[in-house]
Amino acid sequence: MLTVFGSTALDTIRTPTRVLKGVLGGAATFAGISASYFVKTGLIAVVGKDFPKKYHNTLARNLDLRGFKIQEGKTFRYDGSYDETLSTRTTLKTELNVLGNFKPIVPEEYRKSKFVYLANNDPVQNAELIKEFDNVKFSMCDTIEFWIKNKKSSVIKMIKSVDAVVINDEEAKLLTKEHNLIKCAKKIMNWGTKYVVIKKGEHGSLLFFDDVIFPSVAFSLEDIVDPTGAGDSFAGAMIGYLASKRCTNLSTIKKAVVYGNVLGSFAVEKYGLDGILNLKKSQISKRIKHYEKMIRF
Amino acid sequence: MLTVFGSTALDTIRTPTRVLKGVLGGAATFAGISASYFVKTGLIAVVGKDFPKKYHNTLARNLDLRGFKIQEGKTFRYDGSYDETLSTRTTLKTELNVLGNFKPIVPEEYRKSKFVYLANNDPVQNAELIKEFDNVKFSMCDTIEFWIKNKKSSVIKMIKSVDAVVINDEEAKLLTKEHNLIKCAKKIMNWGTKYVVIKKGEHGSLLFFDDVIFPSVAFSLEDIVDPTGAGDSFAGAMIGYLASKRCTNLSTIKKAVVYGNVLGSFAVEKYGLDGILNLKKSQISKRIKHYEKMIRF
Repeated sequence: MLTVFGSTALDTIRTPTRVLKGVLGGAATFAGISASYFVKTGLIAVVGKDFPKKYHNTLARNLDLRGFKIQEGKTFRYDGSYDETLSTRTTLKTELNVLGNFKPIVPEEYRKSKFVYLANNDPVQNAELIKEFDNVKFSMCDTIEFWIKNKKSSVIKMIKSVDAVVINDEEAKLLTKEHNLIKCAKKIMNWGTKYVVIKKGEHGSLLFFDDVIFPSVAFSLEDIVDPTGAGDSFAGAMIGYLASKRCTNLSTIKKAVVYGNVLGSFAVEKYGLDGILNLKKSQISKRIKHYEKMIRF
Repeated sequence: MLTVFGSTALDTIRTPTRVLKGVLGGAATFAGISASYFVKTGLIAVVGKDFPKKYHNTLARNLDLRGFKIQEGKTFRYDGSYDETLSTRTTLKTELNVLGNFKPIVPEEYRKSKFVYLANNDPVQNAELIKEFDNVKFSMCDTIEFWIKNKKSSVIKMIKSVDAVVINDEEAKLLTKEHNLIKCAKKIMNWGTKYVVIKKGEHGSLLFFDDVIFPSVAFSLEDIVDPTGAGDSFAGAMIGYLASKRCTNLSTIKKAVVYGNVLGSFAVEKYGLDGILNLKKSQISKRIKHYEKMIRF
């Protein structure tokens, strides 16, 4: 099985075409649901007593919730606004609420997970949590600007503790102080992780392993309405696919990245979580075929 | 044969690592030399009496110069400076000089060219010049911010007069007032051209034809020193490859785009024109093979 540790949030998302208020979001929500198309996925996350029943049902339909806690207090809330081009997001408010002092516990049943995804959590927590698993075959983490700016040395320690890092291009540059993405990836690999995946949004991604670079395009879309969660959906699909194959050779990881691109493309086509909810497996495999055809020459 | 019409310049290029003063440049120089690896290429351009003999020799070694004029006055000069990331270039000075009142003439020997590339020239001149050819099989043009801002309706007329438009992403957005590149391309195709190629620098390119989209990655490079002329080298290789195949079906055009990416990658590895000068054909075919292997999954 796969375990995903990260945030479940109530998001307010302001796009040029629609404003969503208090909708189900969070890195682990997107990653977990994206992964769930490939493998049984357990979620380690926390929400408050205000978490709507309907969202709990959504999670329960798709994920194993034995690691999911409801605590006294309010759910983590995020409020962000996109510009007209959907390429820049401004954070208006972040209320950590119950996430602020959450002490994640790995349920007994999750300890045997061979695949673990640590979303953009506190790097200290991520590095501690990974130790709780008995025999991890492949672990992957993400990180964000906030931790790079405030806990950089812990981010680097966390990177050392996982097999793969998935990170945005701008955050990779911020973390490594390099401009060239290959130089960024080499520096991150030098810190002790084997694989680096740099996400470039509409420009796709770059996978690095030793001297191998695997650049892949994004699935081209004309109508993008909300980029929220695309990167988390990418990461979830990637590790979910790997977990389903129980295999982590380079060729499988490349294919996993393509699945990442494809689930990321579903995510941005609709608002909030809607793009990756209730997909049919046939829709995913159809888009994978479309992707393969699209890039052929 | 292929005819390339555009600027030959003496460039001052300021990069973070080196400043080049008065070196051979210009859109048609890069495009022509890049194309010359694939097909006999004639150059329609003008320089002044100050144009150094050594640069004339460089052009003469690679190109047919029956359309190349040396006029009383000074050569077109461009002075630009890159920022630390090499992603933004600021124009410090542009002296049109002899280019200002150049009346291009298509030599008798060029009139039978089946392939014509019109670089980022005055759109009125481009649209006039293309009529001088007897029987063009495939014509392609570029354009830049200056013309979009100052002669937009002429740019649109020029687009109607060619088979393909190759354009930077930012300029495509400026021209069409769209944010999404698919929407940009559709608008440009609606103006009357069959193919649109949007260049995205380090992120590769997008080829459009009818409902087909062919996204392609750039060749990944760790050491980039000077992006000058990469887009022109891309365009030159693309149309040069097509001219060498005497074929313009979609599959050949996709392959031509890949050659464009590869010649663009050679261009940025060295300063000024050095990256695409004196390449061996085996270096190009080796990099094409490397490219094909790199993107395989």
